[in-house]
Amino acid sequence: MGTENIRYRPLLDRVTDARTAARHIQHGTNLFISGFTAGYPKLIPRELARRAQEGERFKINLFAGASTGEQVDGILARTDLVHWRRPYMSDRAMREKINRGEILYKDDHLSSLSAQVRAGDWGNADVAVVEAVAITEKGHLIPSMSVGNTPTYVREADKIIIELSNSAPPELEGIHDIFIPEDPPYRMPIPIYRAADRIGKPFIEMDTSRVVAILLSDQEDTCAIFHDPDEVALLIGEQILDFVQHEIERGRLRPGLPWQSGVGDVANAVLGGFLENDFFHNLELYSEVLQDSVLDLIDLGKVRAGSGSALTLSHKARRRFFNELYRYKEKIVLRPVEISNSPEVINRLGVLSINTALEIDIYGHVNSTHVMGSQMMNGIGGSGDFMRNAGLSFMVTPSTARNSSISAIVPMVSHVDHSEHSVDIIVTEQGLVDTRSLTPRQVAEAIIAKCAHPEYRPQLREYYERALKKHGGHEPHDLEEVFFMHRRFQTTGDMRVPPGTV
Amino acid sequence: MGTENIRYRPLLDRVTDARTAARHIQHGTNLFISGFTAGYPKLIPRELARRAQEGERFKINLFAGASTGEQVDGILARTDLVHWRRPYMSDRAMREKINRGEILYKDDHLSSLSAQVRAGDWGNADVAVVEAVAITEKGHLIPSMSVGNTPTYVREADKIIIELSNSAPPELEGIHDIFIPEDPPYRMPIPIYRAADRIGKPFIEMDTSRVVAILLSDQEDTCAIFHDPDEVALLIGEQILDFVQHEIERGRLRPGLPWQSGVGDVANAVLGGFLENDFFHNLELYSEVLQDSVLDLIDLGKVRAGSGSALTLSHKARRRFFNELYRYKEKIVLRPVEISNSPEVINRLGVLSINTALEIDIYGHVNSTHVMGSQMMNGIGGSGDFMRNAGLSFMVTPSTARNSSISAIVPMVSHVDHSEHSVDIIVTEQGLVDTRSLTPRQVAEAIIAKCAHPEYRPQLREYYERALKKHGGHEPHDLEEVFFMHRRFQTTGDMRVPPGTV
Repeated sequence: MGTENIRYRPLLDRVTDARTAARHIQHGTNLFISGFTAGYPKLIPRELARRAQEGERFKINLFAGASTGEQVDGILARTDLVHWRRPYMSDRAMREKINRGEILYKDDHLSSLSAQVRAGDWGNADVAVVEAVAITEKGHLIPSMSVGNTPTYVREADKIIIELSNSAPPELEGIHDIFIPEDPPYRMPIPIYRAADRIGKPFIEMDTSRVVAILLSDQEDTCAIFHDPDEVALLIGEQILDFVQHEIERGRLRPGLPWQSGVGDVANAVLGGFLENDFFHNLELYSEVLQDSVLDLIDLGKVRAGSGSALTLSHKARRRFFNELYRYKEKIVLRPVEISNSPEVINRLGVLSINTALEIDIYGHVNSTHVMGSQMMNGIGGSGDFMRNAGLSFMVTPSTARNSSISAIVPMVSHVDHSEHSVDIIVTEQGLVDTRSLTPRQVAEAIIAKCAHPEYRPQLREYYERALKKHGGHEPHDLEEVFFMHRRFQTTGDMRVPPGTV
Repeated sequence: MGTENIRYRPLLDRVTDARTAARHIQHGTNLFISGFTAGYPKLIPRELARRAQEGERFKINLFAGASTGEQVDGILARTDLVHWRRPYMSDRAMREKINRGEILYKDDHLSSLSAQVRAGDWGNADVAVVEAVAITEKGHLIPSMSVGNTPTYVREADKIIIELSNSAPPELEGIHDIFIPEDPPYRMPIPIYRAADRIGKPFIEMDTSRVVAILLSDQEDTCAIFHDPDEVALLIGEQILDFVQHEIERGRLRPGLPWQSGVGDVANAVLGGFLENDFFHNLELYSEVLQDSVLDLIDLGKVRAGSGSALTLSHKARRRFFNELYRYKEKIVLRPVEISNSPEVINRLGVLSINTALEIDIYGHVNSTHVMGSQMMNGIGGSGDFMRNAGLSFMVTPSTARNSSISAIVPMVSHVDHSEHSVDIIVTEQGLVDTRSLTPRQVAEAIIAKCAHPEYRPQLREYYERALKKHGGHEPHDLEEVFFMHRRFQTTGDMRVPPGTV
């Protein structure tokens, strides 16, 4: 690619190669990168990994918007370059090092990060490395397929390195809506009243004197891979749409509330469910990550507006999106994650929020992050931002995992990310429980009867009844045996009662 | 008292006695009462109890703003009149029946209740019983010492019964700021930009045709009793003020953020700490319940503004407040709890939030509600509204309870109300830990070393090290023995290692 997308000509002399640019990154550098499932830089991470492989010993603190790809978290973790990493990540090599304590990691709500960086809580912003598709005539940045924390990183960083990418067309310009709120005590309301409202500028303002290097890149993000929804995902999606329709028809829920759906196959399947549904139309999405299903819904005329912080598309959907960008751009807004996930806005809009659990307990507490209580999976991401502030919050999971050897419904979750106070509706392929007007004891009976897999119901029911008899109370628990299912799995690799046991 | 405070004369003919008025309340009635630690009705509950004592068998569903007093929750629980109770309560007799499953109870965030009632989630609002100090010329209500959910209850109820009380003077008029937001998807920003902003009307609008009875009352609320702060409370308060001063001086925290402090002696002591502090001045409080300490701070010229949903004063402070009402009224605003506890506003203002824990675990998760995992104490109240949305959130507790037989710092809390993601700073009289830039493993080491009582540090440290060795992971836990301290207490009545044990 050429330099035609550097429309601010004084910056032309900053074009250089990755090796030269990456010299700004040394041992101890706080490195703030763009990227929120998509839109992360690739050339600088590759160069840093190359230096490590050549024997240079150094460590950086790596701060992104959320997860990146193998091209960032994967190679930097494997080359032992990462001292600290914040926030959410989903790379296997990085996860293993975090769980061994070799990479320091803290799991924050995504909505609160930009403000923490502006307050200096994460240390000095030494270098920002951001992917962009253009630099405007005024020297401002047009980001690529995500916004995340990039506006704040660009504003706060001492040095800025830009990876100018041709993997997305410069015609993306106009899809972004960049707004950095003032911080308290001087903050004003975030003026979003409807999901599609634009409140900022279509570019990231940038002090061009801090741009130390521009790299020309033809590297693409690793694309998302979506599987056709399986029966479990379809059943979960169907129940949610039926339930919401029923609530609207009964007059208990106002029509017109926007939807949020988490990342992954189940989430994609829920939105896919709208395709063959006649009740819902003129949908608004106020979400975090927009996926393939959004394009399908737009094509069918089902979606009035889709707001998020990133567009994460499969390879095929990506081509389709670029081919008819002008049409999709009218419907899609990409925002900073502190706006897409803003508790204030989510609460005001009354978002119908759907997120995925690792495990859910009989009283409705949810574990989103820690396998068997100790091992970090990915992180809480934006699920807390949405669940806590939603108009109606759904937590979904298949009732079992790993060939039924794990029950997603357990007596007590081994880690709590979302308490009973944040979770309205629980859905598995087995059934749906609306906890809003149930006592904890009623919740336990309903979740065991409706959401747990039939194979696991007897042991859950027996536990609940024993705890009730032994300790009573508002949420009966027997702390002596409460993790018996987890412990059995840790010992035998299976939560089921072994055959022959009474 | 006379009827001079019924300034809307057509309502004069609704003045009646409690027995007549209470006939509107029958078996199955959904009863929505005013009251938020203060300002609850007294005559109607007494009459209902009398009917029960005379042998009438009936049950009501009782919905308040938050806790009331012995005169409501106490007598109605003891006479077995309550089928459902929502939300927060703090009465001993009621607590016992809730824990036996004899009263149905669900614990919600206080900020979200009014909207639930408007949506019909709690069933039809049959009768509202509200305490007031006056009815205006236009037929609107001036509530007494709290607002809570009263504006919504008055708007939604089929029938309204007013207890016109002379226990507070009609000159309270003007202290309240009543604003009911539209519900999503039509909600607009709540236009509070500073703690003292008034955005509504000084009265509760009321359809006078639904007023079925007015009772003249001289009954007072049971007054709060505050103890002089003990050494533990003083130490906790001191550390918080020192910490915040330090953060402001380092430039990590902006000055001028408003404060919230929970209910009770420790909270009162923290605010009392400002009295002898020279660093803080022009304080703003954006809180839920204002207590005695607020009057002291106003008298000293330390407070610019105090916002809350209720004024809960000791007998002495109450007299003082009424005597110079004109002066205090300039500084104090009483709001609906959906506004005093609004996540949107709390987040915008960047409130410094201090709440009290029952127990805190080594990774910073907090139990506010359930003793030994099963027994409900009072409820989450507004602590979740504030902790989740605060600019900086403090969770405080004495390090031990019951003559040191209980450690407030445990390996894993037996119930989670506030996850690690909501808790920034943990404070006991032993020390303070700022978790914001620590990994969970670092948090565990710091909490054990600084917040736990020295007597409990060895067993906590040994547990942590064993779990780390055995399971590793991001938050090392051994699910087999994680509740060993709770279990020891359940067996022996003491969490300490018995003497002679190795």
